[in-house]
Amino acid sequence: MVSASSLQVSIRRFEPADWPQLWPLLRATFETGDTYAYAPDSREADVRKIWTEAPAATFVACGADGHVVGTYFIKANQPGLGSHVCNCGYVVARAAQGRGIAAAMCEHSQREAVAMDFRAMQFNLVVSTNERAVRLWQRLGFTVIGTLPRAFHHRRLGYVDALVFYKELVT
Amino acid sequence: MVSASSLQVSIRRFEPADWPQLWPLLRATFETGDTYAYAPDSREADVRKIWTEAPAATFVACGADGHVVGTYFIKANQPGLGSHVCNCGYVVARAAQGRGIAAAMCEHSQREAVAMDFRAMQFNLVVSTNERAVRLWQRLGFTVIGTLPRAFHHRRLGYVDALVFYKELVT
Repeated sequence: MVSASSLQVSIRRFEPADWPQLWPLLRATFETGDTYAYAPDSREADVRKIWTEAPAATFVACGADGHVVGTYFIKANQPGLGSHVCNCGYVVARAAQGRGIAAAMCEHSQREAVAMDFRAMQFNLVVSTNERAVRLWQRLGFTVIGTLPRAFHHRRLGYVDALVFYKELVT
Repeated sequence: MVSASSLQVSIRRFEPADWPQLWPLLRATFETGDTYAYAPDSREADVRKIWTEAPAATFVACGADGHVVGTYFIKANQPGLGSHVCNCGYVVARAAQGRGIAAAMCEHSQREAVAMDFRAMQFNLVVSTNERAVRLWQRLGFTVIGTLPRAFHHRRLGYVDALVFYKELVT
């Protein structure tokens, strides 16, 4: 159990029975077109594959009543000789934002990453206008290694910069 | 036809009949484990998929006798809202290196990228010890946007830094 500003969440492996709760949460996030590159009109089957089948592992964060309030995946960011660096994606239900759930999931993911023998974690495309995420990753020890000019096509703002974040987990 | 220091190469779309020439060239490159993340012992079927099926397009550079001396692919680097940035991978036959073939292919790929409506080109994992590549991408107008510490597991040197290169093609 991770305490998160009055919200207790427990983080566990995704199970297929979670999908009916996960899909609306992911759809609502991608639809806004301001945080993830996945097309705002992504189809359910494609998202299920991307989020729960392609990654090495997928987790859910559940509130005290067992309801899913967040989710993340972890996977190798590159094949073969780059596969010691992992990549994660995190989503928190809109109604549960601002309560430390993303931070709890990111800390959980770093421990899982080390247990899975990853040596570093990389975020490839953090939208520069997503200030909450930028601040959070920095607070959790990630470094901006560079800025990709106009690499994200924000649904509302047009082309905006994206940041690459990196953190070594094993030195 | 592109003139390249006494070697004339023509660059055209890959055709399935090229594969028997392409595979030894790619295998020899990946085997060294010093430039690409693809596992040094990658299987032929996997490499064929990665290089000729998954990308948006694959090209070959042929010498005057029609023999394949180089190849590159082009694909979107991210889905949906990041899909206006492309990624390319280039390989030149060892015996044909140092004659400007990589430069000719990269210039060709930038024109193709614009024709395919990409707005920028990104290289995600350029091995820092691959000095020839680092110099070449800089000469061709790419910028190092950042350094990923120990992100590449060099077969001979162990963990070495990797660079992210980026070039806007349309501004």
